[in-house]
Amino acid sequence: MGIEMTPGVPGNDRLLRALRREPTDTTPIWVMRQAGRYLPEYRTTRERAGSFMGLAQHPELACEVTLQPLARFDLDAAILFSDILTIPDAMGLGLSFAPGEGPCFARPVRSSADVARLAIPDMDGQLRYVMDALRLIRRELHGRVPLIGFAGSPWTLACYMVEGHGSRDFAAPKAMCWEDPALAHRLLDLLAQAVAQYLKAQAAAGAQVLMIFDTWGGLLAPSAFHEFSLRYLAQVAAALRADAQAASLPLVLFSKGANQHLAGLADTGCAALGVDWTIDLAQARQATGGRVALQGNLDPAVMLASPEVIRRESRRVMDSYGPDPGHVFNLGHGITPQVDPGHLAVLVDEVHAYGRILRAV
Amino acid sequence: MGIEMTPGVPGNDRLLRALRREPTDTTPIWVMRQAGRYLPEYRTTRERAGSFMGLAQHPELACEVTLQPLARFDLDAAILFSDILTIPDAMGLGLSFAPGEGPCFARPVRSSADVARLAIPDMDGQLRYVMDALRLIRRELHGRVPLIGFAGSPWTLACYMVEGHGSRDFAAPKAMCWEDPALAHRLLDLLAQAVAQYLKAQAAAGAQVLMIFDTWGGLLAPSAFHEFSLRYLAQVAAALRADAQAASLPLVLFSKGANQHLAGLADTGCAALGVDWTIDLAQARQATGGRVALQGNLDPAVMLASPEVIRRESRRVMDSYGPDPGHVFNLGHGITPQVDPGHLAVLVDEVHAYGRILRAV
Repeated sequence: MGIEMTPGVPGNDRLLRALRREPTDTTPIWVMRQAGRYLPEYRTTRERAGSFMGLAQHPELACEVTLQPLARFDLDAAILFSDILTIPDAMGLGLSFAPGEGPCFARPVRSSADVARLAIPDMDGQLRYVMDALRLIRRELHGRVPLIGFAGSPWTLACYMVEGHGSRDFAAPKAMCWEDPALAHRLLDLLAQAVAQYLKAQAAAGAQVLMIFDTWGGLLAPSAFHEFSLRYLAQVAAALRADAQAASLPLVLFSKGANQHLAGLADTGCAALGVDWTIDLAQARQATGGRVALQGNLDPAVMLASPEVIRRESRRVMDSYGPDPGHVFNLGHGITPQVDPGHLAVLVDEVHAYGRILRAV
Repeated sequence: MGIEMTPGVPGNDRLLRALRREPTDTTPIWVMRQAGRYLPEYRTTRERAGSFMGLAQHPELACEVTLQPLARFDLDAAILFSDILTIPDAMGLGLSFAPGEGPCFARPVRSSADVARLAIPDMDGQLRYVMDALRLIRRELHGRVPLIGFAGSPWTLACYMVEGHGSRDFAAPKAMCWEDPALAHRLLDLLAQAVAQYLKAQAAAGAQVLMIFDTWGGLLAPSAFHEFSLRYLAQVAAALRADAQAASLPLVLFSKGANQHLAGLADTGCAALGVDWTIDLAQARQATGGRVALQGNLDPAVMLASPEVIRRESRRVMDSYGPDPGHVFNLGHGITPQVDPGHLAVLVDEVHAYGRILRAV
């Protein structure tokens, strides 16, 4: 691949061990959106890049912001700085981010002809910048911590592609599912193939963990969740298992707001599930019968409270999981821009310290 | 009370019977926000009132918009046109609705001194307009259908009062709960007393069903839900049971996004639970063990799809509950402004027609 890869196990393998439900010295922690706006150094680099997608598409700058939180905090993983919408962007739908407005597609997907025009992007072409960034980050990490690659779920990508922008209810993709389920299934099948190829390419480029964000699965009624979200998560998981390299990497699924579906999500054969903060980890363990590791689930709003509250509430999360192997600490959703970076230092230190105490009892 | 009350049972008592889990000829239906912006006649009256709160505080206009959907659709209930924030408004916090921005309080509640200054509003003073509207609506209904009164839950009121406006995460009220739980409990206890008095006054003014909207309970982690939301719903329910008149009225609780807490909500002794669309009614029945009636739960986005889809998806909801008594059909959340009013006619007719078929099988 033209660059030197650090072979074998990274120096800090807590995350990989916890995702395999193997014992660790303490609880590993990383945080969704850890490379993000709450960090002044991120805002400086983002400014330099000009636009959000300019930052994501520039491998050196994406590498720079990916590594920024690791320079400050004793985190147990790096996660590729990117966006869940890279695939539809590479499909030519014209992605832009209006300030304060979220993502917007110039050419939303509405008709059968729109779906027929879509093709799986070339992972060494339009999406090469993602693989270049992964190779560069992996090299710059020098094996310190594992590197997480990720993608949006087929359903979540379809939400934005059909609606054309963010929404509270995503009525347009839902209407497609109800009015023309065959068309919705064609779109979701194509996206599942694209997501699987994308994650395989990320594995080949050096990602050591793969995560799929199903941000909007929780907006669906149960039968629709099974038919339009879960089914395609399972398709991606099966495709990754059929790929020698990707199969060796832990796969983490995160369906936000879909805690009643944890058992079904575990049935995909993934290694771990992300869990939002509206369920106790003890209950999530019970629902999944110990078949998967769990990643979560501190209420992100805790990070805006005092250090004392951050310590207490993080211990509550860890107590709920207990001392057994298989817990990766995270927030229940992304860290928000208003958080004092010093508060993340408090959290990371508390998780590591209390994780040791939990295991010693 | 100076006006003639229609004594006894209203002409159409399907709703009251279903809430008591007694047999009915078909499934009763009403729709959250049925008096709202999707109706052109509502927009005309709203224009005349000048502002949203101007409309809510003008008994004749509030009565007019409450009755508008009943003139168009064969609905089985009227619900008072009002807002969940009437109590904090009457407490003097300075409520306004900026266009497209949602509610905003000029004087949010942040400190111990702020909480100490709050007093339960006079139900015959600052909140008399609500009781006047109920008396007027009840008279104008001529007993056609029962009239639903409502309030926001203590936790949901506290969310807006402490944050000062709408929010995705309501970090300020959560921070109060974590940083100074004693202060949060003082505020919530006061609000629970105010909500109980408010609902008792509504019962005295002619409401025949009482409903509490806990819109933001679902944002809380489970232990926080129990401590800061459910506990005060139970306090209100107990206070209503201790009031001869209010105790004779069915109480409906709706905690949006809190389906894992349905059993705890049923334990409050309420007659029925509102249910959002992310759970099957069959599963909700199982969780509550047949102790309560259920109200819901069609995905509101269905109303933007075609009549055929509306019919099919509404039958799916009714099939999930089955033919037993105790189902009140509703959307899983409020009807949205973009809905074609003709689509609600389709829904109401389908629910009544299919409800008869279900019972005949």
